[in-house]
This record gives sequence, structure tokens and C-alpha cells, in this order.
Amino acid sequence: MGAKGVGAEINLCDVHDCSMDQLLEYDGIIAGSPTYYGLAAGPIKDFFDRSIVHHGKLEGKLGGAFSSAGILGGGSETALISILQMMLVHGMIIQGQSRGNHYGAVSIGAPDEKAIEQCRQLGKRVGKLALQLFG
Amino acid sequence: MGAKGVGAEINLCDVHDCSMDQLLEYDGIIAGSPTYYGLAAGPIKDFFDRSIVHHGKLEGKLGGAFSSAGILGGGSETALISILQMMLVHGMIIQGQSRGNHYGAVSIGAPDEKAIEQCRQLGKRVGKLALQLFG
Amino acid sequence: MGAKGVGAEINLCDVHDCSMDQLLEYDGIIAGSPTYYGLAAGPIKDFFDRSIVHHGKLEGKLGGAFSSAGILGGGSETALISILQMMLVHGMIIQGQSRGNHYGAVSIGAPDEKAIEQCRQLGKRVGKLALQLFG
Amino acid sequence: MGAKGVGAEINLCDVHDCSMDQLLEYDGIIAGSPTYYGLAAGPIKDFFDRSIVHHGKLEGKLGGAFSSAGILGGGSETALISILQMMLVHGMIIQGQSRGNHYGAVSIGAPDEKAIEQCRQLGKRVGKLALQLFG
Repeated sequence: MGAKGVGAEINLCDVHDCSMDQLLEYDGIIAGSPTYYGLAAGPIKDFFDRSIVHHGKLEGKLGGAFSSAGILGGGSETALISILQMMLVHGMIIQGQSRGNHYGAVSIGAPDEKAIEQCRQLGKRVGKLALQLFG
Repeated sequence: MGAKGVGAEINLCDVHDCSMDQLLEYDGIIAGSPTYYGLAAGPIKDFFDRSIVHHGKLEGKLGGAFSSAGILGGGSETALISILQMMLVHGMIIQGQSRGNHYGAVSIGAPDEKAIEQCRQLGKRVGKLALQLFG
Repeated sequence: MGAKGVGAEINLCDVHDCSMDQLLEYDGIIAGSPTYYGLAAGPIKDFFDRSIVHHGKLEGKLGGAFSSAGILGGGSETALISILQMMLVHGMIIQGQSRGNHYGAVSIGAPDEKAIEQCRQLGKRVGKLALQLFG
Repeated sequence: MGAKGVGAEINLCDVHDCSMDQLLEYDGIIAGSPTYYGLAAGPIKDFFDRSIVHHGKLEGKLGGAFSSAGILGGGSETALISILQMMLVHGMIIQGQSRGNHYGAVSIGAPDEKAIEQCRQLGKRVGKLALQLFG
């Protein structure tokens, strides 16, 4: 959402349909996941594990994350960190945020207006950095 | 609070006044901290660094943590994890919670009734385990 | 291994064959995983996600973790933390170690004698605590 | 070291002498710390806590980290993550590495040739990204 506002072309895909080769086509990847057992959900983990076919080729691409949990203190932050760690292992670039959600966008339950605003800011930040780095 | 309810003797001290030797006298330590830069506050970190004088002697003691942050997604969970990691390095025992706040009690801003209830459950859990382990 | 030495009964199973109901039968669970993208491997994550069928019933059981990575600084510690976080969400009890590998046993590449000794200590620690807690 | 090789101007300072205002003058900050209790050392934590006087002004600057621990599995990776989390809270930009040390440079004990090479690569990566972003 936010990324579109700064002029970036975006593509949404479900982790079950996303092809591995699509990862190569984009300058940035924002991954979202429900929080399962304090981490990204199994299918997201599995997706990153399979992305090893392109290991090294995502170096320097941008990353971002969002996650929702059932309750406050329910693991949404550690889920974000788990996604960011997978991106760092790929050599990707991530940016925090000094105001609002520091590691990525979080919501408790279904995203409310505040959470959607955090997602928008996340998209904007990644989109802006993409334009700055890749023109 | 909760720990008292299960019959444990408790002692509250501010990190600036706590003596290192007090760490040896108790079966469990619950450490609380505001969330500063996604981790426990400097004085808590400094306290644990100085606790190296008793390194090895806290092995098998119980640990627990609580933290408050200014906003949702503001680092309270990673602050808890930072405290738990310091305790694990000491060889301490920690327990999560399958309902409510999984890693320890968190609050956003000043603790509301829900956060106080989480703290109570934390104290109860640590107190109960202490009685089970140390009679 | 180490757990046997202290008198605990142990059962080894591959994550692909382990039944969920087996989780209920034991006092402690030690989970091992190669380090994939800085976390436990997908099948381990998937296993924990599916363990939600017993959510709440593992409360108070013991947990431990070991992980291997290809290189130093290759994510083995964050993989351990990812396993421990899943266990904490289950309300499980984990213990660190003041000497040696603090969060669980790690190896770089195939386990050498030192890594095997760390695994032994891990098993011993979990086994000892199990006997202490559950007789 | 590596940063110099790509044409970046560098400035080394000890955390006890570094002025807060210096943080504003540079495009990137690489923070190093021994691993104390699985996290960055107290003085580093304290330094970041005090950097709140410039909160928001480090947004978009580059960050990197290195850490040494006494032993394998001794917390060097979690110490790196603790530094990176503080940088993300500042809104800083960090990059992982797909080969070698993923989260930043680590050494076990005094840095050997391999660890020094990892530091060099870290400096080079941050320096290169700085030139790409800030000319």
C-alpha cells in the first residue's frame, strides 16, 4: 500500500503460490505472517528454506515484515525478528523505524486502523529506500 | 504479588540498591525493566554484567521477567527475551506461559488491570515452581 | 544420552514420524534441528505449529534444544532461541547453562567431541531436572 | 578497515569517549562489543540508551555490528542481534550477509585471521552501501 504511494510497482502473492523465481524480479520483499509459536508460520519458514535455490542472489534486496498475534505479548515481535533474521541470512537490507512499530508492522487480532497505518508506513519506507537504491 | 499467594517469601529491590549477594539468598529472581531500545534498560544490563562475581552460583535458580514499552510493537517482547537470555547464561530456569503473555508480563504504558493480572500470574508461576523444586 | 546417565527413560524420534500424542507421554522434550536461515528447519517449525492440538497440555514440561550450522556466526544460536521460544509459548520450562553452550548444544558442521559433550550435558541437565520435578 | 577500502571516511572511538553528537556526523555506525550475558556489554547498552537525545535523527543511517565471545555457543550471535535491534529502534538500515557471518562479524576469543576478514567484509559492505545511498 504505502509502497505504491511512493511510485513503486508492487505484486502481492500468497506464500503457497509465490514462485521462487519471483523473488529475483523484485527489489524488495515484504513478508507477512500470523504469529505461530512466537515465530513466522510454518509455510513462511518452509518458503524461506526453499529459497535456498537462490541463496546469494537476494543479497542487497530490501526486506520488511509484518505479523499479527492473538494477544499483546503473544509473540508478534519475536515473529517479526524471525522473519528479519531469515532476510539477513539472505544478505538482504532491512530498516527499522524510530516511531511506531520498530521492527515491522504488528497487529493484535484483525488489523485495526492503527495497524493498517503501520503497514502503510512500512510499505512507504521500503518503497522509498528501493527508489533511492535502485532508481 | 502472585508469588506471595502461593506461600513464597518475596523481597523487592531497586536495581540500584540490590546487592549482588542478595542474588544468592533467593530461589528465584524476577527482573523487570522498561523497554529501552528494544532491550532491558542499561542499569539492568549493568546489574547482570556485575553479577558475574557469582557466575555459576545462580545455576538452577528460577527466573522471570516483565517489561513495559511505550507502544505496541515497541520492543517489550524483545526486552523480555533479552532478560531471559541473561538468565539462561547464568544457567537459570525459566518457564513460559501457554495462555496470556508467553515470555513474561508486558504492558504498554502504565500497567492496566490486564498487565497487573499477567504480573500476578508470572509471580504465581515462579513461586509455584520454586516450592516444587526447593520445597 | 546424558539423560540416560541420570536414570531417565528416553525416546528418540524423527520429526517426520513423531506422533503428536507422544508429546504428552514424556516429561521433557529436547528438539534438535539443523540451522536453516537462522532458525529451526521448516519441518521442526511445522511440527510445533501442529502441536497446537495439545496447546496448554505441555505446560510445565521440560524443554531443551540443540542445533548445528555450517559456520561460526551462521545462525546456530538464533536457531536455538527460535526453538526455546516455541517451547516457552507452550508454557514449557527451560534451563540455560553457565558453562559451555548457554542456550543449548551447538555444533559447527558435523558434531565433534566437544559438541557431543555439550549434547551430553544438555541431556543430563534436562534429565536431572525432570527427576527433581517429576520424581 | 573494509570501509576505507571502498573510499569511506572512518572514525574510531571508544564507547566511553564517543560524543553523542558524533552520531549525527556519520552516515553509518558499526558498533562492536564483547558478549556479556548474551548481549552487548553494559556500556554499549548505556550508550544507546543515552542516544535517545538524538532519537529520530539517526533514521536512515547505516548500522553494523561485531561481537566476540569466549566460546562457541557463548552468545555472540544473540549479542549481535541485540545491537541490531537497538539500531532498528533508531530507524537505522542494516544488511545481512549471505556468506560468512550472517548478522555481523563474530569471533571466539581474540579475533583470528578469519574473524578479521569478516570484520573487513562488514566494513566494506556498510561502506559500499553508504556510498550507494549518500554518494
